Amino acid sequence: MKLDIRQWKHVFKLDPDKQLSDDALEAVCTSGTDAVIVGGSSGVTFDNTVDLLARIRRYEVPCVLEVSSREAVVPGFDLFFIPIVLNSRQADWIVGQHREALKEYGAVLNWDDIMAEGYVILNRQSTAARLTEADTDLTLKDIEAYARMADRMFRLPVFYMEYSGVFGDMDIVSNIRPLLKQARLFYGGGITGPDQARQAAQAADTIVVGNAVYDDLTQALATVKAIKR
Amino acid sequence: MKLDIRQWKHVFKLDPDKQLSDDALEAVCTSGTDAVIVGGSSGVTFDNTVDLLARIRRYEVPCVLEVSSREAVVPGFDLFFIPIVLNSRQADWIVGQHREALKEYGAVLNWDDIMAEGYVILNRQSTAARLTEADTDLTLKDIEAYARMADRMFRLPVFYMEYSGVFGDMDIVSNIRPLLKQARLFYGGGITGPDQARQAAQAADTIVVGNAVYDDLTQALATVKAIKR
Repeated sequence: MKLDIRQWKHVFKLDPDKQLSDDALEAVCTSGTDAVIVGGSSGVTFDNTVDLLARIRRYEVPCVLEVSSREAVVPGFDLFFIPIVLNSRQADWIVGQHREALKEYGAVLNWDDIMAEGYVILNRQSTAARLTEADTDLTLKDIEAYARMADRMFRLPVFYMEYSGVFGDMDIVSNIRPLLKQARLFYGGGITGPDQARQAAQAADTIVVGNAVYDDLTQALATVKAIKR
Repeated sequence: MKLDIRQWKHVFKLDPDKQLSDDALEAVCTSGTDAVIVGGSSGVTFDNTVDLLARIRRYEVPCVLEVSSREAVVPGFDLFFIPIVLNSRQADWIVGQHREALKEYGAVLNWDDIMAEGYVILNRQSTAARLTEADTDLTLKDIEAYARMADRMFRLPVFYMEYSGVFGDMDIVSNIRPLLKQARLFYGGGITGPDQARQAAQAADTIVVGNAVYDDLTQALATVKAIKR
C-alpha cells in the first residue's frame, strides 16, 4: 500500500495503553477515517502496540505507528511517524532518542515508509509537554518560526500543532497553514465532537481525534461525518 | 546566479575575524575553488562580515555566508548556510537560535538561497565543540546515525563532518558517504596541503579548506590544484 498523507483530512489516534472494546475498534476502523495512528505519551510497550496492530489489521484502514519509544518499534505498520519535538528544551527529544533509534534500526529501515513530524506541543498541562519539557510559552511569531523551521529548514512532511487535551486557538492554527509550502498541517487536541472537528478542519489540513474515542465514542465517530461530505 | 552545490568539490572558508591581505584574498578567490564560505566560531560581527563580503565581491567566485549569529546576517551573499549542530547537547544549537532567527527574518527570507547543514563536530578540543557543547565521544555507528538523520529524517542538503583543526579519520569519512542518498558530504578539518586534500577528496564530496589560508597560503592554494585535474 502506498499512502499519500496529503489526502488525509481526518485520522484517529489510538493509545495502546488504553482499553477499547472490539465493537468500538470496529466502529473506529470502519468509520471512514483516513487512517488510524497508534501512539501515546506513556505506557506504550512492544506488547500492547503489537496487540493493537493485530486488532486494527482486521480492517482495511491504513495503520500508522507514531514511534514514541525504541522499545515499542513494531514492524508491520503501513507507515511510521517519527515525532521531533521542536519546542522541547531537551536535545534528547529533538535528536537524541532519534540517534539511538537510528543506531539500532538505521541500516534496515525502509525510508519510503518513514516520515518525521515536526511537533510543537502547546498545552503546558499535558503529559506530552511535561515529559518533553516543552517550552509552551509561545507567541504566534514563535509558532510561525517553528512552522518555517519544519517546512523549509528541515523539509519535514508534517508540521503538527498538538494541544493535547484542550481545544486550541483556531485563529493561530489558521495563521500557520498559509506559511507551509510543502509540509502538511496536522492539528490535535480537544476535538470532542463534530463542532470542534469542523472548526479544526477549516484551520488545519488534517485533524487528529484521540481521547474522544475513549471518552465519548458516538461523538468521536461523528467527527468523521462532520468533515467528510 | 543559481548555484548547484552538488558540483562543488573544493571550497575555502574565510573567517571574518581574521586578517587577510588583498593579495592573499585575490589568490584565494581566483584559485579555481568552487566557492568561498564566510564563517567562523567566534568574533563574527555584522561589520567584519560585510567588509569581507565587499572584498570578495570583486571576484566572480560564488560567495556563501555560513550564519553563525543573528547579529551577523548580512544580505547580498549568493547563498546562506544554516548550521544545525546535530551532536550538540544544547537544544539551542539544534533549533533554539534558529527559532529566534526565523522570528526575525522568517517572513522575508528567500528560501531558494538558504540551505541547512547537518553538522557533526568531531574534535573535542575545537572552539566549535566547546561552544556548542558537542558530544564528540562518538562511535562510527553514532556518526552513521547522524548521517541518516540529516539525510533521510531531516532531508538536509548537506551533512558536514567537522574535525575543526585536526585531520580526521578518512576511514570513517569514507564509510559515511555511501549512506547518504541525497545529502552532500562536506568534510572540514586539518587540510593543510595537497596530500590531505587528495585524501579528503577521496572520502568526501566537498572539502573545506580554512585555517591553512591563514597559516600557509601557498600550501592552501595548492589544495585546489591537487584535487582538480
